[in-house]
Amino acid sequence: MFKLHGVYAPIPTPFQEGKIAYSQLDKNLDFWLSSKLEGIVVMGSNGEFVFLSPEEKVELLQFVCKKCQGKKPVIAGTGAESTEETIRLCLAAADAGANAVLVVTPNYYKGSMTEPVLKRFYTDVADASPVPVILYNMPRNTGINISAKLVAELAVHPNIIGIKDSGGDIVQITNCVANTPEDFAVFAGSASFLYPSLAVGATGGTLALANIFPNECARIVELFETGNKDEALQLQSRLIASNSAVTVKYGIAGLKAAMDMMGLYGGNPRLPLLPLGEAEKADLKAILTQTGFFNAV
Amino acid sequence: MFKLHGVYAPIPTPFQEGKIAYSQLDKNLDFWLSSKLEGIVVMGSNGEFVFLSPEEKVELLQFVCKKCQGKKPVIAGTGAESTEETIRLCLAAADAGANAVLVVTPNYYKGSMTEPVLKRFYTDVADASPVPVILYNMPRNTGINISAKLVAELAVHPNIIGIKDSGGDIVQITNCVANTPEDFAVFAGSASFLYPSLAVGATGGTLALANIFPNECARIVELFETGNKDEALQLQSRLIASNSAVTVKYGIAGLKAAMDMMGLYGGNPRLPLLPLGEAEKADLKAILTQTGFFNAV
Amino acid sequence: MFKLHGVYAPIPTPFQEGKIAYSQLDKNLDFWLSSKLEGIVVMGSNGEFVFLSPEEKVELLQFVCKKCQGKKPVIAGTGAESTEETIRLCLAAADAGANAVLVVTPNYYKGSMTEPVLKRFYTDVADASPVPVILYNMPRNTGINISAKLVAELAVHPNIIGIKDSGGDIVQITNCVANTPEDFAVFAGSASFLYPSLAVGATGGTLALANIFPNECARIVELFETGNKDEALQLQSRLIASNSAVTVKYGIAGLKAAMDMMGLYGGNPRLPLLPLGEAEKADLKAILTQTGFFNAV
Amino acid sequence: MFKLHGVYAPIPTPFQEGKIAYSQLDKNLDFWLSSKLEGIVVMGSNGEFVFLSPEEKVELLQFVCKKCQGKKPVIAGTGAESTEETIRLCLAAADAGANAVLVVTPNYYKGSMTEPVLKRFYTDVADASPVPVILYNMPRNTGINISAKLVAELAVHPNIIGIKDSGGDIVQITNCVANTPEDFAVFAGSASFLYPSLAVGATGGTLALANIFPNECARIVELFETGNKDEALQLQSRLIASNSAVTVKYGIAGLKAAMDMMGLYGGNPRLPLLPLGEAEKADLKAILTQTGFFNAV
Repeated sequence: MFKLHGVYAPIPTPFQEGKIAYSQLDKNLDFWLSSKLEGIVVMGSNGEFVFLSPEEKVELLQFVCKKCQGKKPVIAGTGAESTEETIRLCLAAADAGANAVLVVTPNYYKGSMTEPVLKRFYTDVADASPVPVILYNMPRNTGINISAKLVAELAVHPNIIGIKDSGGDIVQITNCVANTPEDFAVFAGSASFLYPSLAVGATGGTLALANIFPNECARIVELFETGNKDEALQLQSRLIASNSAVTVKYGIAGLKAAMDMMGLYGGNPRLPLLPLGEAEKADLKAILTQTGFFNAV
Repeated sequence: MFKLHGVYAPIPTPFQEGKIAYSQLDKNLDFWLSSKLEGIVVMGSNGEFVFLSPEEKVELLQFVCKKCQGKKPVIAGTGAESTEETIRLCLAAADAGANAVLVVTPNYYKGSMTEPVLKRFYTDVADASPVPVILYNMPRNTGINISAKLVAELAVHPNIIGIKDSGGDIVQITNCVANTPEDFAVFAGSASFLYPSLAVGATGGTLALANIFPNECARIVELFETGNKDEALQLQSRLIASNSAVTVKYGIAGLKAAMDMMGLYGGNPRLPLLPLGEAEKADLKAILTQTGFFNAV
Repeated sequence: MFKLHGVYAPIPTPFQEGKIAYSQLDKNLDFWLSSKLEGIVVMGSNGEFVFLSPEEKVELLQFVCKKCQGKKPVIAGTGAESTEETIRLCLAAADAGANAVLVVTPNYYKGSMTEPVLKRFYTDVADASPVPVILYNMPRNTGINISAKLVAELAVHPNIIGIKDSGGDIVQITNCVANTPEDFAVFAGSASFLYPSLAVGATGGTLALANIFPNECARIVELFETGNKDEALQLQSRLIASNSAVTVKYGIAGLKAAMDMMGLYGGNPRLPLLPLGEAEKADLKAILTQTGFFNAV
Repeated sequence: MFKLHGVYAPIPTPFQEGKIAYSQLDKNLDFWLSSKLEGIVVMGSNGEFVFLSPEEKVELLQFVCKKCQGKKPVIAGTGAESTEETIRLCLAAADAGANAVLVVTPNYYKGSMTEPVLKRFYTDVADASPVPVILYNMPRNTGINISAKLVAELAVHPNIIGIKDSGGDIVQITNCVANTPEDFAVFAGSASFLYPSLAVGATGGTLALANIFPNECARIVELFETGNKDEALQLQSRLIASNSAVTVKYGIAGLKAAMDMMGLYGGNPRLPLLPLGEAEKADLKAILTQTGFFNAV
C-alpha cells in the first residue's frame, strides 16, 4: 500500500485570463518532477482549491495525474464542506489515478465540528474512497483542530494512512506518532517545523516552501535520516524566514511571486486574493535571497 | 430602492433522500409567509448553502423567489470563496427575482482577508450585482470580522445598502450605525442581541429564531418602535435561551428538530452535520417550552 | 444598603518621584467631587493597583475615603490573587470607610479558575467582607470571563450587590440583568457600551472616560432615565472614539496624558508602563477634541 | 558565568495552617537534592509566587538558597507587575545567594505589554540585577508571548543568559536558538516538549514534572546528549500524559497531590486554588502509574 514519506510540494494552480493555465502548469511540473521531491499534492490549500469549480477540479486532477504518472506519486486534495461532495471528489481523484487523497476538515460550521461529527465524516469518507485517505489538520485556515485523541481513533481505519498536520503543535505531533500504529504516517504541514517533526517520528512533510526549494527541503529529510542532525538543523533554521514569507506573511500571492522570480510561472491568484505590490515583492526577494539558495532569473 | 427593516427568517433548506425537499419547503414557506415576518433569507448560514451544488443553488433561488413573489421580499445568500463565483450567484439571484443579496466574507484564506482585500472584494461584487448588496459579518463561522471602519468605507457604495452583523459586538454595531449614511441599514444577526441593536439604531434583524418564533421576534421590533421598551426588553430576555439552543448549542440540527416539533418540516441536515439524539431533542423541547410560546404538535 | 447607580470614575493613581502624589491627587479629587459623578472607584484597573505595595494600598484607601467622606461614595478595588490577601484588603477598605469593594477575578492561574473555584472565591470574600462586594469581570486584562450563569448563582449572596462588566458582551449583560434579583445591579465597565447596557437594564457604569468627561458620561444616564433616548444615543456615539483612545488604544498612559492636557495631574504611569510620546499625545488630543467637549488648558 | 543546562524542578511551596511549611519543604528538598536534577527553581509558577507576601518571598528565598548551597544551583522567580518590585526581588534573591533569576512578563495590562515596553522592562531589570536574568515566557498564564525577535534583541544584553519558554511553539524555540549567541540558553518550560526542544538546540528545561520524576526527566537530556535519540523519544512520549495531568489538567493541586502520593509533602494549594477531590486523585494516580515509574507509598 501507498506509504507517506519524504517531501511533497503542494503545488499552486496557475491561472491566466481567468482559466487554469495548463501549459504553464506543465512546465512547472517539469521542474518539480526533475527535483528530489518525493511527490506532488494537487488541490491543497496552496492550490486555491476553494476557488475552483467542480468541473475545473476534475480536469485539473486528470491533467496532473497524467503528467506525473510513472514519475512521482500524486496526492489529491478532495476535502469539501459536505460528506457527499468530498466522496465525489475522492472518486474522481481515484479515477484520475491519484495515489491518495488529502481531506481537510469541513469548517464553515465550526461550532458543530465536534469530535463525533469529525469521526463520522472521516469514517464515511475512508469507507467510500477507492484510494487511501490522509487527514489534513489546518487550524489556521479552518479554525478547527483534529485532536491527537481523534487521530489515534481514526488511525485504526485501514484506509486512513496518515495525517498532514499544519498546526505545528509539537506535543500533538509527538502524541500522533506515539499513539498510532507503526504504518500510520505523520507529515509536517510546514517547512518551519519539519526537522523537529522528524525528530519526534514524522516521516516527511507537505511543504509550501518545497515548491521553490524542493531539493533543500528534501535534503533536511535526507540529512536527518543519515544521522547528520546538526546539518539538518542548520538547514531547518536557515529556511524559517523564507517559509514564513511564502505562507503566513504573503500567502499564496507570495508563493506565486517567488515562482515568477525563479522563472517558473506563478501569476496572480484568483480574486479576492490580490497579487503582491512592488514593495512586497522586493521584501520577499530579499528574504529568499538571504537563504543563499535562491536563484532569481 | 429596497430598504432593510423588520425581521427576516434565514430559512433552513429541507432535505429528503439526499435532495432538496421542495414540497416540504413549500409548506414551510406558507407558514412564514403568513406570519408577521418582513421577509425571507434563502441560502444564509442556516440554509446550509455550503453543502449545495451550484445547480441546486440556482434551482433553490428560483423556487423560493417564485413562491414569495408579491408576498414578501427575498434576500439571497450569494457569498462564495471566489469573487467570480460570488458574482455569478448574484446574477442568478437577481435573475430569479431576489430583492437583495447577502454576501458573507470569503474565509478559507483567513490570513489573507485583510481590509484592502475585503474592500476590493465587496466593491467588485457590488459593482457587478444587479440587486443591492448586504454585507454579512459572521465571525463565529468565518473567523473574520468586518470592522466598523471598513463598513463605513463600503457604506458609501451606492449598491451596498446594509450589513447583517452576527458578531454581536454592540460597540461595533453602534459605530456601524453612527458612521454610515442614514439610508444604510444595520441588521442584528441573532435574536439574542436584537433589542440592544435596535436601541443603538439597527432597523431589524435576520434571526435563526425567527424561523420558529416569527411573530415574537417581529413583536420585539414593533414594541421597540411604538415606545414599549420595557415590554420589548422582557420579550428579548425571554428569548435568549431558546435562541442559544437553535444556534450555538444545537446549530442547524437543533433548528430543524424544533421545526419538526412544531409540525413544520425540518428533517436532517446534510452530512457531516448530524441530527440531534433523543436526549438532545428533549432538552431542546424543554428550553423552547420555557418561553411559553412554543406549540409542539 | 448601598446601591449601585449612576456613573463612577475609576481614578488613576498619580505618582511623582516614585511615590503616590497625594497633593496632586487631592486636587484631582476636587475636580471629580464637584462634578456630576455619582462616586469614585479607587484602586481599579486604571488605578494601577497591581503596582502598589500592600502599605501603599492601605494608605491610598484611607486618603481617598477621608477626602470623599460625606461628599460621594467610594468603591475600593480589593481583588488580589489569593483569597486571603483579597479579604485583608476588604477589611482595610471597610476600615477606611469605603462603601463597597470591587473584586476582580484572580487570574494568574487561568486554567484553574473554573466556575467552582470562582464561586468559592467570591463566596469566601463576600462572607468575610464587612462592606458589600461587587464582582468585577475584566476579560481583557484577566483572560477570564465570569459567566452569566455564575453571576446568577452569586447574586443570591446577601453581600454581593452587583457586577461591573468590562467585557461588553451585550447578551451576557442582558442575561445578568434578567437572571438576577431586582436589587442586584449591573454596571457597564466602559463608556463605549454604557447606553446599550442601560437599555437592557444596567443602572450605570464605572468608566475610565468619566475621569476626563464626568458630566458627559453622567448625562448619558440622565438622558436615558428621563426618556431622551435619541439624545443619549447621540452622546454615546460621540464618545466612543475618545473612550477607545484612553482605554484600548493608549491605556493608562493615555488617560493620564489627557488629564495633564486638562490641567489635572496625570503624570507618568509606573514602569514598565511607558508614558505617551509626542506624536501619540497629539493624536490623543485630536481625538478628544473631536468630541467638542474637551477643554485643553 | 552561570550557564543553564540540564533539568531543573520548579518546586511547589508547601503550606500548612496558612503558613509556609518549612520542615516539610526541607524534606522535599532532600529528595530533589539527592536526584539527578541539575538544580532548583524557587517561586516559579508552580511555587504559587503570586500568593506569597513580600515578606514570605524573602524568607522562602533565603531558606531554599541556604539549603541548596554547595549542592545544586538555585534559580529564583522574581517577576512582578512593576519594574521596581521586580528589581527589589532580584536584589533579595542575589542577597540570599540565588545563582540566577527567572523573570516572567508583567501581564495584568496585557494590551500595553508591547515589544518596546517589554524590551525596556527586561533591560531595566537586567541592568539592576546582581545575578544573571532568565526571560520567562508563559503565555498560558500571562496571555503574552515574548517573540523570537524580541528574544534575539534582549539576548545581546550581557546579563540576560537565557529563556525558559513554556509556550511550546517549536518554530519560535528554533528561532530563539538560531538567532541568539552561542552562550544564550533556551530552556523548555514543560516536559511535554523537552525532547523536540533539545533537538532544535535547547540545553535543558525547567519542568513541573521534574518534581515527581526528576531522574526520568534528567534522563531524557542524558540520552539525547549521548546520542540515544530513539530511547529519548520513547521516554518523552511516555511522559506526556503524566505531564499534562500535573500541569494543564489538574494544575498545582494535581502536582501537590502527586507528591503526597509519593510520600513527599504536597498539601493543599492556597485558596482560591482548590485541592483535588477523591475521583480526581484516583484519575491522577492511574495516569501516573501508567508510566511504569510511579511509586506511590
